[in-house]
Amino acid sequence: MSHAQQILETHPRTLGTPLGPLVACIDACFDCAQSCTSCADADLGEPDVETMIRCIALCDNCSDICISTGRVLTRQTEFVPEVARVALQACIEACRQCGDECERHAQEHEHCRICEEVCRTCEKACNDALTALAA
Amino acid sequence: MSHAQQILETHPRTLGTPLGPLVACIDACFDCAQSCTSCADADLGEPDVETMIRCIALCDNCSDICISTGRVLTRQTEFVPEVARVALQACIEACRQCGDECERHAQEHEHCRICEEVCRTCEKACNDALTALAA
Amino acid sequence: MSHAQQILETHPRTLGTPLGPLVACIDACFDCAQSCTSCADADLGEPDVETMIRCIALCDNCSDICISTGRVLTRQTEFVPEVARVALQACIEACRQCGDECERHAQEHEHCRICEEVCRTCEKACNDALTALAA
Amino acid sequence: MSHAQQILETHPRTLGTPLGPLVACIDACFDCAQSCTSCADADLGEPDVETMIRCIALCDNCSDICISTGRVLTRQTEFVPEVARVALQACIEACRQCGDECERHAQEHEHCRICEEVCRTCEKACNDALTALAA
Repeated sequence: MSHAQQILETHPRTLGTPLGPLVACIDACFDCAQSCTSCADADLGEPDVETMIRCIALCDNCSDICISTGRVLTRQTEFVPEVARVALQACIEACRQCGDECERHAQEHEHCRICEEVCRTCEKACNDALTALAA
Repeated sequence: MSHAQQILETHPRTLGTPLGPLVACIDACFDCAQSCTSCADADLGEPDVETMIRCIALCDNCSDICISTGRVLTRQTEFVPEVARVALQACIEACRQCGDECERHAQEHEHCRICEEVCRTCEKACNDALTALAA
Repeated sequence: MSHAQQILETHPRTLGTPLGPLVACIDACFDCAQSCTSCADADLGEPDVETMIRCIALCDNCSDICISTGRVLTRQTEFVPEVARVALQACIEACRQCGDECERHAQEHEHCRICEEVCRTCEKACNDALTALAA
Repeated sequence: MSHAQQILETHPRTLGTPLGPLVACIDACFDCAQSCTSCADADLGEPDVETMIRCIALCDNCSDICISTGRVLTRQTEFVPEVARVALQACIEACRQCGDECERHAQEHEHCRICEEVCRTCEKACNDALTALAA
């Protein structure tokens, strides 16, 4: 059980999203932010760095969007579904594009294979949170 | 002339967005990120803090989304319009909601009046960048 | 095993810090960033919000410093120990102050008790990474 | 006059640092965060990208530390000088290292020349804020 779940279980107000999909989404966003920063950095250290430029740029963008989305979802005291929704949509697209690019390098670079997996998980978790929000 | 413009004028690749709207949008995002953090903090110091909770939450969210959007737009080497577009849409909604809430407190708190103004400017600059992107 | 560890195990260059303390520190920083944003938000929702102002401010600062420190430690391709060291020192102080303040509210607010625990873990993990760096 | 100054002039509490150096430091941190993200991205687009790896890594770290430092200094409601001090020290070192590396490429890349200038300004502004804090 993550600390995201532990703290949200003690939250003084009613959550704007069901706990299960909310925690999964927050955890996935912070995990993906870390993985994308790490993959971009590993790309920079590869001998074929010139072929990794697009991967670096997409990882950097995905990491930043994951941080902001993970924080927006974390804030439940005055939860504004309209803001959560657009943040999730941005995160879904960033993860999808980053996952697609990492997939292209997954055979040569194991860090890209792992990062692709983390991006797919985050994309799915954001989609699930979006569905839970609409319900 | 801001440093965003100075550096982008020396960029080795063709920009994915016309320079004018791009620089205005980046500058507005970083300015709004700072203003929203400042307004949230000033709200916390007000004697009527219990009436400012929604303003604090919306300012914190807006600040985080402005940072990620400002950075995504800054990265022009492997510019992916699909990612820029959703980031801008998230920022537009975050600025709109935050600007609306700040407006409600603009009479009592001068920092909310200023922050509303900065949010409106950023919302407009993001809309202009979105239009320039589509052109 | 976290994704931080999985990706760092496939890193193309020699790590600037031993893997064990490095992964523990990165994981603790991202976990603490999330917990502090969550605790600050829960504080905002408490009926005694006026007594939680200092806790909110320290949590917000700690969250931001944890994100930047977690990312600096994640970047190992051109690792500059001098930068890692000051980032870790900033994080240690931010976690210590935030942990101390959360401790003051741990009896009334379970989220503060959990957040204190996460801050103490992060402070220790940063200290261990600092020691490993100097070795 | 920046919005940082405008909002801080309306702050409900006494500032923990004199307004002049405080505003200069906050503005420099946000400007440097943007410039470093921009310089790292321009580096990625250069034909000699393999010689720019260290510059990219130092710019990315400097940008993250500038954001967290700029926000810590912005938060004046419950200002904790010990936290501000270590944040400033981290920022000074990050700017110094990044400025030194950008200087090495200033002849070939105009964006590095500009980014060096911005890093030096931020380093000085952080030093001035540190002095003002101690006074």
